[in-house]
Amino acid sequence: MIPHPAFSVDPWSVGETELNLDVLAQAESVFALSNGHIGLRGNLDEGEPHGLPGTYLNGFYEVRPLPYAEAGYGYPEDGQTVVNVTNGKIIRLLVDDEPFDMRYGRLLAHERVLDLRAGVLRRATDWESPARRRVRVSSVRLVSFVQRSVAAILYEVEPVDASTRIVVQSQLEANEPMPPMSRDPRAAAVLAAPLESEMSVARDQRAMLAHSTRASGLRMAAGMDHEIQCTGRYGSLIESGPDLARLTITTDLEPGQTLRIVKYLGYAWSSRRSLASVRDQVDAAVAEAHHTGWERLLAGQRDYLDQFWRCGDVELDGDAELQQAVRFALFHTLQAGARAERRAIPAKGLTGPGYDGHAFWDTETYVLQALTYTAPDAAGDALRWRHSILDFARERARLLNLQGAAFPWRTIRGHECSAYWPAGTAAFHVNADIADAVARYHAASEDDDFMREVGTELLVETARLWRSLGHHDADGMFRIDGVTGPDEYSALSDNNVYTNLMAQRNLRAAAEAAEQYPDPAAALGVDHEETAGWRDAAKTMLVPYDERLRVNPQSEGFTRHEKWDFANTPEDHYPLLLHYTYFDLYRKQVVKQADLVLAMHLRGDAFAEDDKARNFAYYEALTVRDSSLSACTQAVMAAEVGHLDLAYDYFAEAALMDLDDLEHNTADGVHIASLAGAWIAAVAGFGGMRDHDGRLTFTPRLPPALRRLSFGLGFKGRWIRVEVTHDQARYRLRSGPPLQTSHHGQPMTVTTEEESVLPIPDAPARPRPSQPPGREPARRRAPLRWVAPSASVPSVSSPNPPEGATP
Amino acid sequence: MIPHPAFSVDPWSVGETELNLDVLAQAESVFALSNGHIGLRGNLDEGEPHGLPGTYLNGFYEVRPLPYAEAGYGYPEDGQTVVNVTNGKIIRLLVDDEPFDMRYGRLLAHERVLDLRAGVLRRATDWESPARRRVRVSSVRLVSFVQRSVAAILYEVEPVDASTRIVVQSQLEANEPMPPMSRDPRAAAVLAAPLESEMSVARDQRAMLAHSTRASGLRMAAGMDHEIQCTGRYGSLIESGPDLARLTITTDLEPGQTLRIVKYLGYAWSSRRSLASVRDQVDAAVAEAHHTGWERLLAGQRDYLDQFWRCGDVELDGDAELQQAVRFALFHTLQAGARAERRAIPAKGLTGPGYDGHAFWDTETYVLQALTYTAPDAAGDALRWRHSILDFARERARLLNLQGAAFPWRTIRGHECSAYWPAGTAAFHVNADIADAVARYHAASEDDDFMREVGTELLVETARLWRSLGHHDADGMFRIDGVTGPDEYSALSDNNVYTNLMAQRNLRAAAEAAEQYPDPAAALGVDHEETAGWRDAAKTMLVPYDERLRVNPQSEGFTRHEKWDFANTPEDHYPLLLHYTYFDLYRKQVVKQADLVLAMHLRGDAFAEDDKARNFAYYEALTVRDSSLSACTQAVMAAEVGHLDLAYDYFAEAALMDLDDLEHNTADGVHIASLAGAWIAAVAGFGGMRDHDGRLTFTPRLPPALRRLSFGLGFKGRWIRVEVTHDQARYRLRSGPPLQTSHHGQPMTVTTEEESVLPIPDAPARPRPSQPPGREPARRRAPLRWVAPSASVPSVSSPNPPEGATP
Repeated sequence: MIPHPAFSVDPWSVGETELNLDVLAQAESVFALSNGHIGLRGNLDEGEPHGLPGTYLNGFYEVRPLPYAEAGYGYPEDGQTVVNVTNGKIIRLLVDDEPFDMRYGRLLAHERVLDLRAGVLRRATDWESPARRRVRVSSVRLVSFVQRSVAAILYEVEPVDASTRIVVQSQLEANEPMPPMSRDPRAAAVLAAPLESEMSVARDQRAMLAHSTRASGLRMAAGMDHEIQCTGRYGSLIESGPDLARLTITTDLEPGQTLRIVKYLGYAWSSRRSLASVRDQVDAAVAEAHHTGWERLLAGQRDYLDQFWRCGDVELDGDAELQQAVRFALFHTLQAGARAERRAIPAKGLTGPGYDGHAFWDTETYVLQALTYTAPDAAGDALRWRHSILDFARERARLLNLQGAAFPWRTIRGHECSAYWPAGTAAFHVNADIADAVARYHAASEDDDFMREVGTELLVETARLWRSLGHHDADGMFRIDGVTGPDEYSALSDNNVYTNLMAQRNLRAAAEAAEQYPDPAAALGVDHEETAGWRDAAKTMLVPYDERLRVNPQSEGFTRHEKWDFANTPEDHYPLLLHYTYFDLYRKQVVKQADLVLAMHLRGDAFAEDDKARNFAYYEALTVRDSSLSACTQAVMAAEVGHLDLAYDYFAEAALMDLDDLEHNTADGVHIASLAGAWIAAVAGFGGMRDHDGRLTFTPRLPPALRRLSFGLGFKGRWIRVEVTHDQARYRLRSGPPLQTSHHGQPMTVTTEEESVLPIPDAPARPRPSQPPGREPARRRAPLRWVAPSASVPSVSSPNPPEGATP
Repeated sequence: MIPHPAFSVDPWSVGETELNLDVLAQAESVFALSNGHIGLRGNLDEGEPHGLPGTYLNGFYEVRPLPYAEAGYGYPEDGQTVVNVTNGKIIRLLVDDEPFDMRYGRLLAHERVLDLRAGVLRRATDWESPARRRVRVSSVRLVSFVQRSVAAILYEVEPVDASTRIVVQSQLEANEPMPPMSRDPRAAAVLAAPLESEMSVARDQRAMLAHSTRASGLRMAAGMDHEIQCTGRYGSLIESGPDLARLTITTDLEPGQTLRIVKYLGYAWSSRRSLASVRDQVDAAVAEAHHTGWERLLAGQRDYLDQFWRCGDVELDGDAELQQAVRFALFHTLQAGARAERRAIPAKGLTGPGYDGHAFWDTETYVLQALTYTAPDAAGDALRWRHSILDFARERARLLNLQGAAFPWRTIRGHECSAYWPAGTAAFHVNADIADAVARYHAASEDDDFMREVGTELLVETARLWRSLGHHDADGMFRIDGVTGPDEYSALSDNNVYTNLMAQRNLRAAAEAAEQYPDPAAALGVDHEETAGWRDAAKTMLVPYDERLRVNPQSEGFTRHEKWDFANTPEDHYPLLLHYTYFDLYRKQVVKQADLVLAMHLRGDAFAEDDKARNFAYYEALTVRDSSLSACTQAVMAAEVGHLDLAYDYFAEAALMDLDDLEHNTADGVHIASLAGAWIAAVAGFGGMRDHDGRLTFTPRLPPALRRLSFGLGFKGRWIRVEVTHDQARYRLRSGPPLQTSHHGQPMTVTTEEESVLPIPDAPARPRPSQPPGREPARRRAPLRWVAPSASVPSVSSPNPPEGATP
């Protein structure tokens, strides 16, 4: 078993059993709660010690200038950065005048548990102050999946040995001082004191602060209300100022007496609505939360998650750590998207300020793959967000001298925020990735309203982009030159295979949608000439092939480039981008992340089987996985071509990306796409699920270490459950009419009546491909047993304890 | 005749006959005086009105941070910007209390003349103040070619009608307020008040100011002394403060009386020497200038230029305007390099702050081509500057994971200052351009000391760069991938023909130098294995060729890219880089400036004759000449393949780049490379001079409009003079042993005894190639007659008037 540095292993929760200041910020990301609308980092209730305080509202950002030493036409002049908004999580505690701070005194016991079924973060601490006053503090925190503007905290404190003077300060605090961030370009820029006070109100046990941002002109309000239960007498005081609202509760408690506070938090924000309107919205949210009450908030949370897990849970037998990790991954994927509702799903969700809070292509390509089959409404809403920024994308296309829509490489509100265009704007594949997600969501949901309202337009405008971006050469082939594919260690190449194949799918999907949904297509001015042009471009799409090596060059000419000198690259020079220039990386055969291999997953229908195996081996030897987006895709393709052990290693890497902090930047948020990738590795990798052209097919095969894999998928109004062991796979519909699919190429019909049980053929025997020296994935050894969390989580703070196995 | 907006036409001078405020800054660049060591823009003596005040010292710069919205490994963090130093040109005049300012009152006559033989700027103004006091003001200004730290001004004022109170303030002024500069990325960043006072001294009629820069830590001092002749009584007052030293002269003059002031200026600067040392140096320079005296400074200037013109003059019969322009061009080329002496020759010389005062590859490729054959010491010194920055270049190569030396794309002191690497650092050809200039200078000068001291090392270190930058492919061909050639509308391409051919020459030259100069080569650790590696790489160098089109793609794949949609590009969208994104430009067939065509000039030995004609026609249709570096090269190759009229048009464009302000940025300095290009167009274009592998050859041919071309070249200790008419060419040595050369492929020996007179064969008849619509060069119509300047330049202010024809 690999020793686990920070978190305990349990099938349905992630816990810490001691306070480790070295991984404080990492734990705050792992323990972050979000519903996609609002997000609270897992900061301690008392605010300090902290790694990085964080409270985020989806789409709430500040504008900052993007500086250039040498400017150029079309360079974006303004960036957008997620803002740490008013912190409503803070509940400070004084114990006989001593601030409750776990860095001082004696920490007798401490545990935090993220409960993946209850959807709460529990905390229990037994602490003795420097003056030897001992208290037990426990809390339960949730961000409601049901009431999207609401978070709530149950906070309890009791003295252990002696009568103790207790002061609790429950706060709203704006413009918190932030620790300095690293100079790593991936870390977000810090904006100091980004909020300007517009209003502060306090009455009874309620308070509200309203602020706006200077440059982006967004307005937000945060409100709180409280329920207090105290076995002793207590006093309370409410007060508010521009950046601080505070309810102070004072009491003297005897051992056995408890102060119990429920804090209801509401957030509202808008770019347009008045201060009064936003104020009223937040007051209403808090009032509704108070009306719902703590227990019903908890119950609603549990119901929401029960339903999610019932359909989407992935079960793994044989590797407890990965069982935990894949559920943790699905949980955070859900948290990122559940209630995003026509706002973006950022690369780090709402768990930290990494990547400036921007959304990239991996939302569509990774996160929406998982959500389409497990939480389809969230996937549809994310694509409706893309539709809502179409006007910016059309404007960007015009600026780039192109037709249709050019979606931004990175953004919050919809404007291009990428200041380095060879790895940004030139990575046009984001447009095909969006189209791919539209086609996938449409095939899985059969949501005609979606297609009429947004889907057709997204497909048409992206198809127009490709048609204007490419051109026919003298041989009549359709070329797309000078673009950047997924691999960020190459740029500005001709005929990137991934890009061309995804554009091909985009063009075809648009032509089909125009046929299937003639009204929206006509409204966009699509005629038969235009769809014929798309079909022709798709049909003549150039896909380079190296006849000598019998592999696809990732882009034209790639296989003729010099190979990276891996033998003389020291291990501490990874990630390469921090130790070598882009100039050097771009011109050599070295791959940051799956590119051609990702094409073989998403467009597997465009490759011959033996080319896939050769391609996979060729790119394995070049891929350094300096991106968190790579391992899951390598897992999928390793499994497909028969390297099941290797797939298992990559699956573990994707699933443990954040729990083991493999990229060393979990501190600024978890990697939602890699977490979704853990689901992809399980379902598309070992489950062998493919969805080319809207047909579900399966080629399941387990690695030796796993005994059983089970997963569920929603598809065309059905829920299908697949259970895989070494010998056989069982398919069953939970609901809906029979579904045509296939198992290892053999057609079959899955029904609700009867399980289809089919044998699994042996994997083709191929030598395990090699990776660059030192970049091999860690060889996975499954843990032998569960590591149970310590028993100290008190049930008193867990009114709705885990119920055993999920349905 | 093309109406000339700003300047009068004369074979040996450039003049203005009225004050045109619209072209004030342009005129300041055209009238700038420099010796390559110090440079004074042609600002009016009284300081205002001005376009852009400018006084520059070669190598004197300030450091400024280079900001990046997304930083990357190896991006330079600091830039260098030329500083406008203490202005010693200012001589203010009060006429009966009214400031002499040509914007007010009545300007009865005004003329300025840049005298290309005397090396002075003359000025004569007849002005009536708003209070109706009329004065004549004249001045002569020089920057000494002989005493490199010295400039001098003769200033005379006399009243015309009535007794007039005259006050003259002769000043040194530091930290002048600067007008705001444009946002054009090509214009230099303005640094406000860059100088910190260290000392100011004034005594008698002398004063000195010393300053240093904050960030770069450079120290400078400017000193002045005066000779005053006044027919009336006068008083004077000297004073100084931190940023101002001033000699005030007060007198009352009757009509016919004259106040005559000679102002001697000295400049000194250093990065190392003490304040006392720099102070003493400037005092010594001023004392020496005073000792030499005005007349002898003038005479020395004339002698220096007589010698230059005797050897290097280019005579043109049939186009007076171009006769003037080509001499103007040679004059500025000389001014930029004459006394640069191991400092850089910036792209704009010392005539303005354009391009931040940086030197680029065009110094070697354009400016040194001309200087090698007309002022060889200046060429050698410029290469010694390159040698002096070898350590920075070695360091840069290490940072880029390369061997040898990687010279900066743009710099003042030697550090890479290019913040946009695809068009900067990736343009590695600068290294081969330097090597080419070394080989050319060596062949022309046979300067063994140079080769032992600097030349061999420059060749070896650049050859090492190429050897490590390229690699052999599976066919054994040597490839150089992912670099940027001269055309800045393409970037990061594989096997750029220009780059590969120039690298080939570089590798061969290094191997030859290592053989010829074994001692310095051995000291650098060069052995036979290494030279064999260079020769092999040179021999197997890949030069892409498109068999279908039978042309060379500029870089691999170029001819398969989409052609730019010239038909739908509005005329006001040029230069394209200000109206289209780099993304769009890079991926299409559109050429900013000669690239493959430049390869055909400099490596004409590597192309078949019919390929040259086809290539030329192919790239003509794609080249938009958004760079001033293009026209001269197009002139050379147009002449070679027989398009003599077209060559004439391009020659005119190159020669008139600044006089007609064709790029609209002459305001921030003249384009030294394009001016040198006018010489190249004449000598290599119509003279057909080539110097491949150190052999001079000629294929002269005149366009119909020119009757005669005559030029001189210094070569291997000889001076050869070539005179070309439509029918024949005459070759004669002015000095030295016989020289083997060739005329239109026919070997000949040129001697001092006898002219070789050879007939000129007809040019091959080929259809005139087409250019992108609207980007055709202006069809040249030669002016029918001289336009003489008006007669108002008074001889009184011209103690050493033009003497007629040059020797």
